[in-house]
Amino acid sequence: MPEGQRADARRNYARILAVAEAEVAAHGAAASLEQIARTAGVGSATVRRHFPSRRALLEAVSRKQMEALCAHARGLADSSDSRGALLEWLGDVVTYSVSARGLAAALVYDGAGSDDIYENGCSAMLEEAGSPLLRRAVQDGTVATGITVADLITLVVGIVLATEQRPDPAAAADRLFRLAVAGLSPQG
Amino acid sequence: MPEGQRADARRNYARILAVAEAEVAAHGAAASLEQIARTAGVGSATVRRHFPSRRALLEAVSRKQMEALCAHARGLADSSDSRGALLEWLGDVVTYSVSARGLAAALVYDGAGSDDIYENGCSAMLEEAGSPLLRRAVQDGTVATGITVADLITLVVGIVLATEQRPDPAAAADRLFRLAVAGLSPQG
Repeated sequence: MPEGQRADARRNYARILAVAEAEVAAHGAAASLEQIARTAGVGSATVRRHFPSRRALLEAVSRKQMEALCAHARGLADSSDSRGALLEWLGDVVTYSVSARGLAAALVYDGAGSDDIYENGCSAMLEEAGSPLLRRAVQDGTVATGITVADLITLVVGIVLATEQRPDPAAAADRLFRLAVAGLSPQG
Repeated sequence: MPEGQRADARRNYARILAVAEAEVAAHGAAASLEQIARTAGVGSATVRRHFPSRRALLEAVSRKQMEALCAHARGLADSSDSRGALLEWLGDVVTYSVSARGLAAALVYDGAGSDDIYENGCSAMLEEAGSPLLRRAVQDGTVATGITVADLITLVVGIVLATEQRPDPAAAADRLFRLAVAGLSPQG
């Protein structure tokens, strides 16, 4: 393939993936490949050349968002506010999980069947990304000891699952997550 | 029906329901009607006379457990430790939800489809039962304001959903629920 065509293909891939991400955010796993092709301004055949199946597309979207979450964690690693950094990143995990709500059932932490495209890799990546943030916050004494990143992610996943049918799932999940962060005791 | 037969029927009903409760706790919604009949020492026809469908049986089990949860809340209403009473009752809700884990997906709070036997009635009953306990704890200043029973139940349901595939779901759910009660800040 000549260089010009390769560059075109890369641009198409990036555009299709960006459109797919928005479609998945809006419609979950039910996102339409045909709609993605129309919005990206390419033919269905071009979408299918890059993503032979819906599963391949969802995997690529998930990988892109996971990579963004991991990059965000790295970016927060040196924040002077270690608790704030951890909570900001966890808020991002909540937002990601809600926007991918159509995939949320598939994300049930550690509970995915072997047919599940989000199992294992996903949890391991998030745990690895979040660990330095939690470790620093615990060292600073701003977060209790005895909590693991796996605990926090499981909590997020549960909250997202329990609120996904609400009229405004993002607001409901955010509210409950803040409640869990604050705990039940009166503040201050 | 003569009185003796009626008394027999009532005893059979109670025995079948108790056995069904144990079977559902062990096997979730997949509990076998045939196994229930064998364990209860009655014929399948007797089970089917009392519970014409699996759904009828699961509804009866759920209603029995819900009634027990509500009775427990009433029993705790005058406890001198209002926070402890609320937490004890919520722990009961966790235990109930875990033991009925096969039904947990159906319990997704406010998220049940119209075909769902646990929708609405269930949440409303739990909210009504838990409200006096939460109100007293807030009045005593032992629980933060701005939290609703619906928040707490949604949190429980989410935790149960996110941990139902763990090797020991009861321990995992209990641990996470305690984490959410305590919050992320280091304790006093």
